[in-house]
Amino acid sequence: MSDTNEPILKFGIPKGSLQDATIALLEKAGWKIRQYHRNYFPDVNDKELKISMCRAQEMSRYVSDGTLDLGLTGKDWIQENESDVHVVSDLIYSKVSNRTASWVLAVAGDSPYQRPEDLAGKKISTELVGCTKRYFENAGIPVEVEYSWGATEAKVVEGLCDGIVEVTETGTTIKAHGLRIIAELMQTNTRMIANKEAMADPWKKKKIDQINMLLTGALDAESLVGLKMNVPGDKMDDIMDELPSANSPTIAHLHNSDWLSVEIVVAQSIVRDLIPKLHAKGAQAIIEFTLNKVI
Amino acid sequence: MSDTNEPILKFGIPKGSLQDATIALLEKAGWKIRQYHRNYFPDVNDKELKISMCRAQEMSRYVSDGTLDLGLTGKDWIQENESDVHVVSDLIYSKVSNRTASWVLAVAGDSPYQRPEDLAGKKISTELVGCTKRYFENAGIPVEVEYSWGATEAKVVEGLCDGIVEVTETGTTIKAHGLRIIAELMQTNTRMIANKEAMADPWKKKKIDQINMLLTGALDAESLVGLKMNVPGDKMDDIMDELPSANSPTIAHLHNSDWLSVEIVVAQSIVRDLIPKLHAKGAQAIIEFTLNKVI
Amino acid sequence: MSDTNEPILKFGIPKGSLQDATIALLEKAGWKIRQYHRNYFPDVNDKELKISMCRAQEMSRYVSDGTLDLGLTGKDWIQENESDVHVVSDLIYSKVSNRTASWVLAVAGDSPYQRPEDLAGKKISTELVGCTKRYFENAGIPVEVEYSWGATEAKVVEGLCDGIVEVTETGTTIKAHGLRIIAELMQTNTRMIANKEAMADPWKKKKIDQINMLLTGALDAESLVGLKMNVPGDKMDDIMDELPSANSPTIAHLHNSDWLSVEIVVAQSIVRDLIPKLHAKGAQAIIEFTLNKVI
Amino acid sequence: MSDTNEPILKFGIPKGSLQDATIALLEKAGWKIRQYHRNYFPDVNDKELKISMCRAQEMSRYVSDGTLDLGLTGKDWIQENESDVHVVSDLIYSKVSNRTASWVLAVAGDSPYQRPEDLAGKKISTELVGCTKRYFENAGIPVEVEYSWGATEAKVVEGLCDGIVEVTETGTTIKAHGLRIIAELMQTNTRMIANKEAMADPWKKKKIDQINMLLTGALDAESLVGLKMNVPGDKMDDIMDELPSANSPTIAHLHNSDWLSVEIVVAQSIVRDLIPKLHAKGAQAIIEFTLNKVI
Amino acid sequence: MSDTNEPILKFGIPKGSLQDATIALLEKAGWKIRQYHRNYFPDVNDKELKISMCRAQEMSRYVSDGTLDLGLTGKDWIQENESDVHVVSDLIYSKVSNRTASWVLAVAGDSPYQRPEDLAGKKISTELVGCTKRYFENAGIPVEVEYSWGATEAKVVEGLCDGIVEVTETGTTIKAHGLRIIAELMQTNTRMIANKEAMADPWKKKKIDQINMLLTGALDAESLVGLKMNVPGDKMDDIMDELPSANSPTIAHLHNSDWLSVEIVVAQSIVRDLIPKLHAKGAQAIIEFTLNKVI
Amino acid sequence: MSDTNEPILKFGIPKGSLQDATIALLEKAGWKIRQYHRNYFPDVNDKELKISMCRAQEMSRYVSDGTLDLGLTGKDWIQENESDVHVVSDLIYSKVSNRTASWVLAVAGDSPYQRPEDLAGKKISTELVGCTKRYFENAGIPVEVEYSWGATEAKVVEGLCDGIVEVTETGTTIKAHGLRIIAELMQTNTRMIANKEAMADPWKKKKIDQINMLLTGALDAESLVGLKMNVPGDKMDDIMDELPSANSPTIAHLHNSDWLSVEIVVAQSIVRDLIPKLHAKGAQAIIEFTLNKVI
Repeated sequence: MSDTNEPILKFGIPKGSLQDATIALLEKAGWKIRQYHRNYFPDVNDKELKISMCRAQEMSRYVSDGTLDLGLTGKDWIQENESDVHVVSDLIYSKVSNRTASWVLAVAGDSPYQRPEDLAGKKISTELVGCTKRYFENAGIPVEVEYSWGATEAKVVEGLCDGIVEVTETGTTIKAHGLRIIAELMQTNTRMIANKEAMADPWKKKKIDQINMLLTGALDAESLVGLKMNVPGDKMDDIMDELPSANSPTIAHLHNSDWLSVEIVVAQSIVRDLIPKLHAKGAQAIIEFTLNKVI
Repeated sequence: MSDTNEPILKFGIPKGSLQDATIALLEKAGWKIRQYHRNYFPDVNDKELKISMCRAQEMSRYVSDGTLDLGLTGKDWIQENESDVHVVSDLIYSKVSNRTASWVLAVAGDSPYQRPEDLAGKKISTELVGCTKRYFENAGIPVEVEYSWGATEAKVVEGLCDGIVEVTETGTTIKAHGLRIIAELMQTNTRMIANKEAMADPWKKKKIDQINMLLTGALDAESLVGLKMNVPGDKMDDIMDELPSANSPTIAHLHNSDWLSVEIVVAQSIVRDLIPKLHAKGAQAIIEFTLNKVI
Repeated sequence: MSDTNEPILKFGIPKGSLQDATIALLEKAGWKIRQYHRNYFPDVNDKELKISMCRAQEMSRYVSDGTLDLGLTGKDWIQENESDVHVVSDLIYSKVSNRTASWVLAVAGDSPYQRPEDLAGKKISTELVGCTKRYFENAGIPVEVEYSWGATEAKVVEGLCDGIVEVTETGTTIKAHGLRIIAELMQTNTRMIANKEAMADPWKKKKIDQINMLLTGALDAESLVGLKMNVPGDKMDDIMDELPSANSPTIAHLHNSDWLSVEIVVAQSIVRDLIPKLHAKGAQAIIEFTLNKVI
Repeated sequence: MSDTNEPILKFGIPKGSLQDATIALLEKAGWKIRQYHRNYFPDVNDKELKISMCRAQEMSRYVSDGTLDLGLTGKDWIQENESDVHVVSDLIYSKVSNRTASWVLAVAGDSPYQRPEDLAGKKISTELVGCTKRYFENAGIPVEVEYSWGATEAKVVEGLCDGIVEVTETGTTIKAHGLRIIAELMQTNTRMIANKEAMADPWKKKKIDQINMLLTGALDAESLVGLKMNVPGDKMDDIMDELPSANSPTIAHLHNSDWLSVEIVVAQSIVRDLIPKLHAKGAQAIIEFTLNKVI
Repeated sequence: MSDTNEPILKFGIPKGSLQDATIALLEKAGWKIRQYHRNYFPDVNDKELKISMCRAQEMSRYVSDGTLDLGLTGKDWIQENESDVHVVSDLIYSKVSNRTASWVLAVAGDSPYQRPEDLAGKKISTELVGCTKRYFENAGIPVEVEYSWGATEAKVVEGLCDGIVEVTETGTTIKAHGLRIIAELMQTNTRMIANKEAMADPWKKKKIDQINMLLTGALDAESLVGLKMNVPGDKMDDIMDELPSANSPTIAHLHNSDWLSVEIVVAQSIVRDLIPKLHAKGAQAIIEFTLNKVI
Repeated sequence: MSDTNEPILKFGIPKGSLQDATIALLEKAGWKIRQYHRNYFPDVNDKELKISMCRAQEMSRYVSDGTLDLGLTGKDWIQENESDVHVVSDLIYSKVSNRTASWVLAVAGDSPYQRPEDLAGKKISTELVGCTKRYFENAGIPVEVEYSWGATEAKVVEGLCDGIVEVTETGTTIKAHGLRIIAELMQTNTRMIANKEAMADPWKKKKIDQINMLLTGALDAESLVGLKMNVPGDKMDDIMDELPSANSPTIAHLHNSDWLSVEIVVAQSIVRDLIPKLHAKGAQAIIEFTLNKVI
């Protein structure tokens, strides 16, 4: 359907738990992706892109062998596949908490196991067989590692295995199953990865940079807000003392007045402490607003 | 889980019809509350708070006896329980309309009852037994007041009672049951209430003030918007005449120009009348934007 | 219910596929419409309006005969009904894509028909019987046109007719049924239409203008965003070269600095290309924000 | 897909409100119909049948012109289309009540109209335009009849027309809209109709008879149950007096006993009165069981 | 709506958790109840009945004072209300398990309380305030009993009370909250209760008996099945030894054969053990079928 | 929780697509399984059983090593795991069609591949890696087989592999993706498998036989129905000619009559042809009823 003379960047989006969050983030960044039933290449409003929906587990294979130029997947599955790809950036977002997740070793809460070495000779169930094997090999602990098709936590409870290696953001699900975490194998987060030959192609490199800048800008904006307030000229120094130093404020004189208009982008997480302080120091008409992108 | 040396404010959130609206409002204010299945103390991203989910009907009991330091509940249930608490603020928001609600006395549309005294000797069904009894006692009207487990409106229709005392925001549900309102017993809205001893503790008092300032600021922002426009210098006075006097606009000179940039926060409800007037007086590039908080 | 001395504008909103999008757009414009079960005249927070929910197919009849003063409906159904109404404005929005839609003539993908004239003597199924008949009459092609109660695409597949005339935004549904489009009969989009006598009444004319201005402003805002950035004074000309000429930016001096604050409203669709260029030319602290209305 | 030498009966099933009930009834009768997404000819486990899903409104057209051999549709739409078809049988079933439905003339509850003639010169809205016009013409009452795309009841309430002709089983929806029924135009129920040439083809006639026998048997079974009981020989005459005469019971001697086993098929609706009487007359071990088909 | 000369039995059905199960059971018994939106007296296909939907908690009040003639509610709420009614029968069915339920006293799993007396001076939260107070008074244990609007289990966990009295069928929910049961206050199940004057009215008494017979027969049938098998004449005694003695089988000679047909109604719960035994003893063609009613 | 002296059979039920069908079948057979949230050993109303929910893919591993005594899983996964287990029986049921399913080799509909050997040197994606590798090795065709985490059909369409090996009952999903089946690798259906040591334990063997008899009886009953009819004595031979020979009918004399009562269990699939024939030969009062079990 696309003219063969037009360059195209083949971009893989992860299916499954991260899919909706990824599509929403790309829309904020400026690319609208529409999936039609039984249309495997979702529409995107950019004729320079061809989108594929792939399992996160398989993504790095396809980026590595050039089936895709660019992909979003977890650091964990890149390592599991031992894929040779260029890491463009780390993007910390998730279905739940926008935190990094961890693969952890967990055992029954009432089991005697306290450290990984206590599992020598035991059976470990996991979806991440390769990394798990390498972890125990490096530690010199002989274990049997078995591929698990899912519901891995339940296997310890049912006595189908002795320990599991499973991914978690908050530990809640693992604790809710009555399990106890005894080691962390690896932290993971979403990564933008590119095929190495694609990175050597100037057109593709530039397109990847564009996507990365906008996607990063949209992701950053999710944890930031804009604050705007009016400040009497003589209180400006006091106010400046309270503002985080990272982002310098935009300050303008108000018309026919000694007051200044102060506008600044700050982390959403500090606002509830910052506003009372600014108010106490004399800032007035403080408004907070949402940002789509911050570059 | 929390170190006993760290001060903690115990904060009760009402379960049920207001729960989602309250959690959304707290998130806008800066506190993210996450409820896990079977976790009775929801997580909150503030280690100085411990959140409990309680029935609105029972909240004031717990605040009064110090089980909680702070709570959100209706004025109606505070009076029903005759609880001795400190009222921090009134917060007018609801599941439906952000208006205050009323407890009203209603009878069958085709009944002969026109005034409360017509119900002398009759049976009244209500969930608000205490306030209803006091209302009729003060009026010197002898009635039988019976506790209703719900679906109170239907009881009049089915002939199970003669009148009901029920809460309503718009009267729609009551009318839809073919009932007629003959008196208003009390108006009610959400109140932030605090334990009196907690108010005397400086750390708790300051924490309560912070929550109140941010929650009020987030609630106020829901009915306000920001407007920004460019105005020719010589039309500025005309434009000022149209702007509501309560909030003074932020006015700045534009670069190399006689035009001024005017920014103002106004009630959303007046915008549809204000914009045509501003436009007619010469304002240009008028944009409206949403606010998260206005302090 | 309304005092007969107060003027009222009777405004028809289309039921069905556009209903939710229309109500959302009106809310952004400043009118909150609430539909109660079995209340045929939805509530609106403007006592000068009376809202009716009507089928798009029937709207122009009611506007034409004065049952309604103002209505939103498709250009297609205005033509189908050959209604004599005043077109206030075209509003390009939809459930799906905010594009105009087309009524097209489609046949089975594996049929021999290539042009409309190939269907001479054949049966055409459509909901738009009048326009379809006129189209074929104008082209001098004799066909049988039959009213279809829905699921029109399937009729070609099942051999119940030879061709269909159906509406489509993207062609996706038609292709998904294995059909082939061989002609476009008409493009259509939502129109605001008014009764001609209502347009001659000054009060109604002014009310219609207000609704049109705010609705258009809210609709425009959906495809626009605000950008704000800080620019070094000596880079300002470079930056200006990149900005689209249609909307002039609002530029202000920053306090005690050579930098300028630049704010502009641009089409959302160009942002992903514009931001990298602005950044490359020296713009900093670029933020993008959403707009409710742009007048 | 089917060999052209094998005879096939083309059978139309009504889409929409009756679709699920019809497919369930056919399954009870012995034909399993499975609809795959985008498969317009649903699968059926009988290679002698080809099933089409059609609108009830259009069915009789297709049966009349031989596009289909057999179809299920309403008596109302057969008359509306004035289709020349063979009526195989009447099947009284529905989504709601397994009663016949009626098309009635209804007006606003508070309107002055009491009889059809009161509507002379007025506007009637209906989906059944043809029958409605003929009804008023036969009665010599001049009215304007307008096609309604749905939500017809609401049109009277909103003042868009003076009366409606609408279908109803129980009158509940009409009354719930505050309308009053002033005349019944026609009763309707589902009919099995066949193309007249198909009825003249012996193979098709036999296939149609088979479908009719089994479908009727399955439908009859829905309102019947089996009862089985043990009766002392000397009470048999008393018991016989209570049993409905239409269906003669199956009576067998019990082994080594004077007791008889009595089994009978009766209308479900009389069971609650019949069982207490049988029990009072000495029947024991009365069991009731469900029937799939009764031929 | 009903002629005042026709006798009517006013029958109350419990709203809420048992509602669907009750309506389904009544349908099996022979009464179809249809609830229309906003129709407080549901339709029933028996003009001798008038159905009301009432809270189980309030039912016995209405039966006691004659507002209703007959009602279904829990033994617990009859006792809570101390209502003077005639108990027609006990009906053991439920939303979950068709077992009786119990009101139990439960405390936090890790609390020191082991017996009711350990709660002397403590706070008990319950919806069943009256019975709970009487229980502790009878035991001479002073406690504070507080009405709970729901989610009672959570209150112990959150420290809002020391113990709860709550209803449970299996204990699962209570254990899932980490609570420990330390006493059972009362067992409860659904009861059919009648007004005492209604029982003295011969027509009402007979109607109540009919409803009770059919409802009991339908309920019994839920735990029973029919078994039918062919047995060689000489094995009949062996087979008889295996059959439960309560229900005598229906035995008939087969035509031109030494075999007997044996039919029996047995508890569903014993079938999985009974069938292998019958099969081992020579029974053949064993079929099991469902029963609607067993009287 | 269970006394160690009581023998227990550990029985594995497959999670996922077959789970609901399996639990429903076991309930018909006589075992009620109730799954509580976060209870990994579902409750079963038989203290001789302990139920585990396992992935079908992993079941045979656990049965083979004695973690479970008995399990239900697919023949395919038993072979994939090369597990050494005792096959108790084949149970042909499924979520969809109660037919056996097949693992097939499929390629893009427009690809040049016609036979397995055409895929030499190509990439095959499948969840059934072991069987697929063995299949191609046996055929002497060198291919690359890659584990697929799901959505395997889409991979051919997206160009991520050249062929797939996937399971299908009807081929519908494969065709709907535009793929073409070029070979069948294996047929599969659910199997009841037992641990070999468990089969040697008399108590466990007997329990397994009981489960197998009842489960098979319940499954058989799904495709059978009971027919009962009255037949004149002199037509009995004619009727017998029509009845399938496999199941001999139960025939009894009717009381005081020359008629016979004939009862027979037949395949549901032949009923629609059988009933018209029986009716034509003189059978009357033919009723069809459902069976729970047929042993």
